[in-house]
Amino acid sequence: MTDGQYVVVPIGWVESPLVDPATAPKQGDEGAPEAYLVFDQGIAEGLRDLQPGTDVIVLTWLDRARRDVLVVHPRGDEARPQTSVFNTRSPHRPNPIGLHRVTILSIDGTRMRVRNLEALDATPIVDVKPVLDPGVER
Amino acid sequence: MTDGQYVVVPIGWVESPLVDPATAPKQGDEGAPEAYLVFDQGIAEGLRDLQPGTDVIVLTWLDRARRDVLVVHPRGDEARPQTSVFNTRSPHRPNPIGLHRVTILSIDGTRMRVRNLEALDATPIVDVKPVLDPGVER
Repeated sequence: MTDGQYVVVPIGWVESPLVDPATAPKQGDEGAPEAYLVFDQGIAEGLRDLQPGTDVIVLTWLDRARRDVLVVHPRGDEARPQTSVFNTRSPHRPNPIGLHRVTILSIDGTRMRVRNLEALDATPIVDVKPVLDPGVER
Repeated sequence: MTDGQYVVVPIGWVESPLVDPATAPKQGDEGAPEAYLVFDQGIAEGLRDLQPGTDVIVLTWLDRARRDVLVVHPRGDEARPQTSVFNTRSPHRPNPIGLHRVTILSIDGTRMRVRNLEALDATPIVDVKPVLDPGVER
């Protein structure tokens, strides 16, 4: 901590065909292509017990988002009335942390192929957590 | 971003009777007492449309956690074999971001009383997100 702030250090990056925020799906189950989570070798031991076929929650740092936004049009649709940002999943928010439930398809060392990830290519990964309630949590 | 790192700025803090990590519940539905989310006035507009009686996902910065941990005994139980940290919800992890599904009980300006929050008193809040699938997500 420095002066009431905290420093996030990426543990890996997203590799995805998605490069354009304007056309990327808003949520992972809305047509996201398969993507890869590519982790730093330095944290490999922390991944040891993850298994293909399971779902995990991936936290990302949405590095192309704006941080000075407190109200948004839901899903970027200007026909919809503005809503307070903490009542939305907009990437634009004071701390742009993305929350994604994905399915691990395969694991090759520190590379994992996943389904249902709508994050853009090169998005930093900051955490991975197990799903506590399989089948229902996302 | 500075040098591959990102800075998290708290948007508020937890007020809770929980002060001891050793005796606090591991998850919010394991006996957590009622607590308060106390937000900065500066982000009040971002909270405008949140409603009592609804569930939200609160992200915290677990400021008393260790960041150099890659394997842990699940739930701190040394009788259980060590597991890779990204397969657990341990607070000790490279980026100690807490993920909590809570129920908003009441709202008074930028103070919200909530149920099912296991975070310790004075834990920084970094984000709030709506639940996408009411009734099943946590």
